[in-house]
Amino acid sequence: MRARAPASAANLGPGLDVLAVALDLYVEVEVEPAERLTVTSDGEGADLPAGASHLAARVASQVCGHDRLAIRVRSEVPVARGLGSSAAIALAAAAAAGADDPLAVAAREDGHPDNAAAAFAGGLVAVNGLDDGWRVSRLPLDTGLAFVAVVPDRTLETARARAALTAYVSRSDAVFNLGRLALLLEGLGDRRKLVPEATADRLHQGPRTPLFPEAPGLLAALVEGGARAACWSGAGPTLLGICEGGDAAAVADAGRAALADAGVAGRVLELHADVEGLVVGARAQLPG
Amino acid sequence: MRARAPASAANLGPGLDVLAVALDLYVEVEVEPAERLTVTSDGEGADLPAGASHLAARVASQVCGHDRLAIRVRSEVPVARGLGSSAAIALAAAAAAGADDPLAVAAREDGHPDNAAAAFAGGLVAVNGLDDGWRVSRLPLDTGLAFVAVVPDRTLETARARAALTAYVSRSDAVFNLGRLALLLEGLGDRRKLVPEATADRLHQGPRTPLFPEAPGLLAALVEGGARAACWSGAGPTLLGICEGGDAAAVADAGRAALADAGVAGRVLELHADVEGLVVGARAQLPG
Repeated sequence: MRARAPASAANLGPGLDVLAVALDLYVEVEVEPAERLTVTSDGEGADLPAGASHLAARVASQVCGHDRLAIRVRSEVPVARGLGSSAAIALAAAAAAGADDPLAVAAREDGHPDNAAAAFAGGLVAVNGLDDGWRVSRLPLDTGLAFVAVVPDRTLETARARAALTAYVSRSDAVFNLGRLALLLEGLGDRRKLVPEATADRLHQGPRTPLFPEAPGLLAALVEGGARAACWSGAGPTLLGICEGGDAAAVADAGRAALADAGVAGRVLELHADVEGLVVGARAQLPG
Repeated sequence: MRARAPASAANLGPGLDVLAVALDLYVEVEVEPAERLTVTSDGEGADLPAGASHLAARVASQVCGHDRLAIRVRSEVPVARGLGSSAAIALAAAAAAGADDPLAVAAREDGHPDNAAAAFAGGLVAVNGLDDGWRVSRLPLDTGLAFVAVVPDRTLETARARAALTAYVSRSDAVFNLGRLALLLEGLGDRRKLVPEATADRLHQGPRTPLFPEAPGLLAALVEGGARAACWSGAGPTLLGICEGGDAAAVADAGRAALADAGVAGRVLELHADVEGLVVGARAQLPG
């Protein structure tokens, strides 16, 4: 069976571990019965070891209960950049292997329920762990928004990014993020209301800046270049400028110039929200 | 001049100091020039000292720069119960005294910007302090919802309720509230999606329970009685059952029975969201 899942940007501004948006870069995974395990991988991540240790193989074997599978992975999603590549692969692999609840499998195997929820449902989502499983809230998203992703040519390991966070935060910082989360949801639902302050955050972006010292300058450049707001994507290093669709090219230019000014190698992608989420079956192929 | 402002329930579930809804109980304040200060007060709060120390007198004098004012206050909002009485009085007094920015005055003089924002804008709001002042986000609210207020015959001073909170919280509790805030906003915008877990919170309701030990039992009774969710209103002691409009009478009955069972004297009000907020001028009189 074949399944397709989109990239995603999690940890949007104040929404640490909660708020994510699906983006129009895709992973396609095909899982077929075979005599023995084979994994072929094209596109982004094709240089990773393609054997039993590949995330798609681990997830599909776990779902099927055996590894006599031919697995094919094609990906447009940069790996280990904070764009939800592993969640998309885990979700698509679980679905292609026939999982009843691919979201639960992906959240468990990959460990990023926020990315998995966005990849599953599409659009803008918040995720909550309730007693009976993951609850995905699909929240209003203004489809006139574009997402300019500044993707540095460096990886930032999630474990290291997670270790940068403190175990305790002041109550006033927690309240700060609650307020900004509401402000961000207002702005993502109606782009005319989106303001730069909406992505302000006191839980993760600051503590992670030592891991990517150029980030504040790049974020500021995106806003100066016309983005309505800017924030980290996931645990970075990808940075996101959120803008009017018609401003995306100008914001992308500003992102490229800022990367050059900062001496950071990387690329800039003009993305839009994906609103389909997980697609299983014949329609599940990469666009184009 | 005359102004009217609604009651409000702040600190809704996870939304400590951020999320508030305006409710259809009202305060009306009239401010007219006079030879010397007089304050007359009818309705709720009429037993409070009616002189220069009255909140309406303090606010109006401050706005006018003198106290040669005849001030009349009529209120339907129970005092010191967590229903935003003081914010409504401060807002209406500021507006009736001709303040350019009554929200800023009320937030400063009364100290509850969340209540003041709801009373100002009506409906469901989130408030953020930005560099240029208070930013009020008006968020989607399903008008099919009703709010059943269980109002004990006891006051709970905000200062004491505030002192019960801890200065630091775990990051996981902060994240928990962020997730629940998104879940609550989803449910308040579409009542079919409102679930009891949406008002779960780890920042304020638990720490304040020793000040009102019967609260958890009363909240549970509201949900068992048909409310989709239940939470504290402001810093309490009022508790709120959020329900379908058609279920309000049954939920109110459950609230009365639970008060009786717990041996707590009090009353139960069936309220709805106010969507007008602050009204200034001839239309600003109490309904009925």
